[in-house]
Amino acid sequence: MSPSPGDRVRVTHADVTDEGVLMPSSDAEHLVVKLEGGYNVGVAREDADVEVLESDAHVVGEEDGDEDDVSEIEFDDDLPTVSLISTGGTIASTVDYRTGAVTAQFDAEDVLRAVPDLAGRANYRGRVVANILSENMEPNVWQRLAGAVHEEIEAGADGVVVMHGTDTMQYSASALSFMLDTPVPVVFTGSQRSADRPSSDNVMNAVCAVEAAKADCAEVMVCMHGTPSDDYCSLHRGTRVRKNHTSRRDAFQTVGGEPLGRVDYETEAVTFADGREYAERDGVELDVAPDLEPGVELVKFTPGMDPAAFDYLDGKAGVVVEGTGLGHVHTDRIPRLGELVDEGATVVMTSQCLEGRVCDRVYDTGRDLLDAGVVEAGDTLPGTAKVKLMWALANVEDPADAMGRDLAGELTEESRPWA
Amino acid sequence: MSPSPGDRVRVTHADVTDEGVLMPSSDAEHLVVKLEGGYNVGVAREDADVEVLESDAHVVGEEDGDEDDVSEIEFDDDLPTVSLISTGGTIASTVDYRTGAVTAQFDAEDVLRAVPDLAGRANYRGRVVANILSENMEPNVWQRLAGAVHEEIEAGADGVVVMHGTDTMQYSASALSFMLDTPVPVVFTGSQRSADRPSSDNVMNAVCAVEAAKADCAEVMVCMHGTPSDDYCSLHRGTRVRKNHTSRRDAFQTVGGEPLGRVDYETEAVTFADGREYAERDGVELDVAPDLEPGVELVKFTPGMDPAAFDYLDGKAGVVVEGTGLGHVHTDRIPRLGELVDEGATVVMTSQCLEGRVCDRVYDTGRDLLDAGVVEAGDTLPGTAKVKLMWALANVEDPADAMGRDLAGELTEESRPWA
Repeated sequence: MSPSPGDRVRVTHADVTDEGVLMPSSDAEHLVVKLEGGYNVGVAREDADVEVLESDAHVVGEEDGDEDDVSEIEFDDDLPTVSLISTGGTIASTVDYRTGAVTAQFDAEDVLRAVPDLAGRANYRGRVVANILSENMEPNVWQRLAGAVHEEIEAGADGVVVMHGTDTMQYSASALSFMLDTPVPVVFTGSQRSADRPSSDNVMNAVCAVEAAKADCAEVMVCMHGTPSDDYCSLHRGTRVRKNHTSRRDAFQTVGGEPLGRVDYETEAVTFADGREYAERDGVELDVAPDLEPGVELVKFTPGMDPAAFDYLDGKAGVVVEGTGLGHVHTDRIPRLGELVDEGATVVMTSQCLEGRVCDRVYDTGRDLLDAGVVEAGDTLPGTAKVKLMWALANVEDPADAMGRDLAGELTEESRPWA
Repeated sequence: MSPSPGDRVRVTHADVTDEGVLMPSSDAEHLVVKLEGGYNVGVAREDADVEVLESDAHVVGEEDGDEDDVSEIEFDDDLPTVSLISTGGTIASTVDYRTGAVTAQFDAEDVLRAVPDLAGRANYRGRVVANILSENMEPNVWQRLAGAVHEEIEAGADGVVVMHGTDTMQYSASALSFMLDTPVPVVFTGSQRSADRPSSDNVMNAVCAVEAAKADCAEVMVCMHGTPSDDYCSLHRGTRVRKNHTSRRDAFQTVGGEPLGRVDYETEAVTFADGREYAERDGVELDVAPDLEPGVELVKFTPGMDPAAFDYLDGKAGVVVEGTGLGHVHTDRIPRLGELVDEGATVVMTSQCLEGRVCDRVYDTGRDLLDAGVVEAGDTLPGTAKVKLMWALANVEDPADAMGRDLAGELTEESRPWA
């Protein structure tokens, strides 16, 4: 019997045996098998020995849920509506399309097949904005994403969950933080371990993100494991979050403060930390300002770097420097930064220390930088400062001034350089 | 009476009054006044009103110590000899030269005048390698510094303390870690707050660094406040340390592990953490390999960056990429990196996450990077990887291979990408 998409198969290739459901493949030379956990593997057809275990088994996951629960999802008036927007990444690989291709929409049935634990928590709407690895994220996708979130909220979503690869989630969360005025939570989540791994974090992260999307707040946040255990997810402000570890489940941390809150996995309680300010649900009128200035670069200064690293910056609208300490570069680089300012660029100083404020009034180098027209970004993270500058150059009258003011929780507006 | 260098003066300029000792100034338009704590301020002569409080008061600090203790320092056979090498920075500003100029040597008397608490702990030798702000540090200074440390140890020093500005201390400590085989401790220290501030950390850091330099170990380390309090200094491995805060006294942290040990300020005890490996005193034969390949650049990848940022890399011997997540860049950048490899460059991947290993075998982007000839730096910090690559290209036969091996504690040699 020739295997066809939808069949449950056992594939042996080299010394490895995989069992799962055969997916449609766009490539005649490869088989794509969706493993138990939802992770796809590609196998060269000519090297593979394929045995059909069950014909037309459809997609993985069905047997995990109650068929009646997932086959016909009715709208429940008692539940809030959460929009799930997918941009790609490891977590999105758990959402399966029966066509095997990326479609522009997915429905509640698809969502619950992927993560049955989401059942009964909300009415779901699904939407695919992109299906890319997050290292391939581009500013124009941020713009489309902001538009999609805006539309979903306008259409009545009580909260939005954005599924995103973890590599650049912090940049996208920053972008939406500046672009959106939102009356409901917009919660980014992702997965550090794919669904086929016993240690996968995708189910808990998705569940906690949906709970956060229903909470009484109105912030752009990142919801990811708060510890290596499955106890709670932390809620990080979109402009303050950073992936601080390449592989840990609790890789995401708030830099320069505590997380906004957390979602307890067992009790499903969403709590906000004492003393952390956040916008309440419906306290803000929905708006979106997705324009971005693309000509903004972030350049990291290191000892011994070639001055030619600054050559390509001519004509850029904005430059963010990741300096040392309180916000310094080699004295010899300062005239070049002054030149860029004179040419009309907004040049912004941040620190590779990541924590703490830049303060260029303490040492000579800093004062020379200020004299050259370089602007301080306070305690704004370098990556966030880049996104903010792209946004500010396209949306505010005085971008240099805006870089010293707090727009979306990215900057502590006080001058305590030694605090 | 016309004020002259060495006089204690009161200088009023604008609404500010400073009291201190007038220093010789190389600039006829400015007065330089050394304040009580040892910090120098420059004041425009024409704006300043100067009152002489005491003629020929010599230098600040004398009245703090016992004149007999500091005026004639005799060599004490019972004490170890510690060489203090100054490169500049805030901490070095406390070491005062009666000539007012930077000289190539300073002696025990100068050291004890600056930090009286150092008395009785060691016999001191002093040496100035540079007097620069550490943001102006250059690879050639690392080479001179390594040579000076080598000479001091050869001349009998039982330990070396390097006074260094905090901005780029981690880069210099990395450089000496690769350049030196040392049988004694080489301890970098600095100051986050200048000596004229009540919260200055310079005395405790200097005292703890001297105690660490006397300890039974043989590592290149950084000794800085371990907490915001004056309780202990942490000892960080030179290749693992990072300034993680712009201004806190405990800004320096070991990334990817615990510090090697600590120096208790009250008891002066130097202890090493359980399970942390370190070289013991006299276990290594003294050697120095100061050659560096200058043509090495570190480039940070961010979403939306202009591909032109890679243009200036043609002809470089080495490129360190600070990628996202497990070690990624936008797929479209990979061919360019492959081109650089084909042109003969060693191209190395690190992660802007800072913690955790890069692992390019997990996702397609990573595998494409490996296929392009990009080399993984494991859990080596990006800045350390740059310094290591400069050193490896000048000193080892197969630099690409060396980037995957541990040379100076900078890399955990195991393949546990998800650990």
